[in-house]
Amino acid sequence: MNKNIVGIDWGTSNRRAYLIDQSGACLAEHEDGQGMLAVGGRDQFGASLAGLLDAMQLPADVPVIMSGMVGSVSGWQEVDYLDASVPLTQLPQHLAAVTDPAWAGRATIVPGYVYRNGASSDVMRGEETQLLGAVAQGHRDGWLVLPGTHSKWVLLRDGVIQSFATYMTGELFSMLSKGGTLSSMMGGDSADSDGFATGLNQAARNEPLSNSLFRVRAGVVSRAAPAQQAAATVSGLLIGAEFAAAARAAEGQGIAVIGSPALAARYALAAQHFGLNCTVLDPHAVYCTAISQFLKA
Amino acid sequence: MNKNIVGIDWGTSNRRAYLIDQSGACLAEHEDGQGMLAVGGRDQFGASLAGLLDAMQLPADVPVIMSGMVGSVSGWQEVDYLDASVPLTQLPQHLAAVTDPAWAGRATIVPGYVYRNGASSDVMRGEETQLLGAVAQGHRDGWLVLPGTHSKWVLLRDGVIQSFATYMTGELFSMLSKGGTLSSMMGGDSADSDGFATGLNQAARNEPLSNSLFRVRAGVVSRAAPAQQAAATVSGLLIGAEFAAAARAAEGQGIAVIGSPALAARYALAAQHFGLNCTVLDPHAVYCTAISQFLKA
Repeated sequence: MNKNIVGIDWGTSNRRAYLIDQSGACLAEHEDGQGMLAVGGRDQFGASLAGLLDAMQLPADVPVIMSGMVGSVSGWQEVDYLDASVPLTQLPQHLAAVTDPAWAGRATIVPGYVYRNGASSDVMRGEETQLLGAVAQGHRDGWLVLPGTHSKWVLLRDGVIQSFATYMTGELFSMLSKGGTLSSMMGGDSADSDGFATGLNQAARNEPLSNSLFRVRAGVVSRAAPAQQAAATVSGLLIGAEFAAAARAAEGQGIAVIGSPALAARYALAAQHFGLNCTVLDPHAVYCTAISQFLKA
Repeated sequence: MNKNIVGIDWGTSNRRAYLIDQSGACLAEHEDGQGMLAVGGRDQFGASLAGLLDAMQLPADVPVIMSGMVGSVSGWQEVDYLDASVPLTQLPQHLAAVTDPAWAGRATIVPGYVYRNGASSDVMRGEETQLLGAVAQGHRDGWLVLPGTHSKWVLLRDGVIQSFATYMTGELFSMLSKGGTLSSMMGGDSADSDGFATGLNQAARNEPLSNSLFRVRAGVVSRAAPAQQAAATVSGLLIGAEFAAAARAAEGQGIAVIGSPALAARYALAAQHFGLNCTVLDPHAVYCTAISQFLKA
């Protein structure tokens, strides 16, 4: 029992906790809406974590490893990004202990990564833990895709990040659905396969997104396209933009997607459309594998 | 006095009215926030127009020519789009009379245009009136750019639209400023010249917008870029995407921008960046010229 550990994927809006035993098996899971934004300030994280452990009926001194926005400047404690060249398997050596005097237990934060390419930067927090799990599962080379609010495309070589790129796919979809010119026509099924294919086809032409998004509206108001496909077309445009950017680089290699069944299915469809092989990994299993790596280290 | 006419640019959020005499001179101007969304339903447009004429101290039977969203499905009366191949100088022959029985005066609506290119459509409502004015001012050939919420790039040949493309530049900028991941860092001056140039440079590389927008955030949180330039960088990315798409086509021709001084200045800067000559036309003068064309017809 003493070697059990809790891994928490503590994001902006939600958090998900897993109790892992020394064999790496997941004994319990807990998800709630107490993401970074809901906690209400740096000095509230200790109480929030205590509440989580209490809800899971765990002692307050169980070791905790956290990843995600909890380590950002707006989280519990800012943890510097690691350079992308640091191998994923070295993450256990770079954990930052929580120094909050109000927290008596053993809690550490996994650092995110920064990738610098000339004057341009990209960052991740949380996905590095998933990547460590994928590497431990044998995915040490090629493209790993983590779809979501901020989709990541990561190129690995021998367990080391070569490059990565983030796409604001989920965030833009959500913004466009909630307000503005397109929102009134985005009530349809965002998984509609014809609408999704229309968006993917347009994305493949590499036209600017600010133009192709407007043409979704123009198609509807000029009665050239059915309104009920608009949401799926927007989804296809946004996900297709990721593939259009990465597909040439990924040619002949295929991709592995770490995502929920619904999202992963959409990415698998897009992969097929762009002629890429696609493997799907379960994000919960991958996360538990990652936490077990920290236990071993 | 009898030959005076009122031209109204009746958009989504605002409307602007001009009283034009038979010589084409603008005698009075009125702007207010009674755009389509504020009117509150199709059956309220008559009362809204009566209020506008009253505010301008004009008789209720003065001839009125309206353009913009007033002719959309959510406006006073839906007016079918003209095909882009119809010459702008023929717009006076395609005015649609308002048939609302509650309106006793003489009111007509200028139709917008649809441009079909294979399966893809683009539309305009309101800009066609500006284009007619520009043509009457001698801009019959080459690229006309109308920046704004939905920026339009229009290629004219001998006063006929060859093609046009709409970019959701202003709308996306506004959305990203108001909420989501980037908004907290977009409080700086959106005209900052260094930030704007950074965005233009990135846009010139034709990377997907959903990625380059995220990298604005990544640059700030990884301390590679100053937060106070983020708003201008986003502006440069969005405006730069328009230029990146059109600049090759416009090479050697230059562009004419019909826009407010602040917006036009930003487009002139971008034009210089992309090696294009740029002429600026005053949108109010162009609109009045357009209305005088309807008077003559």
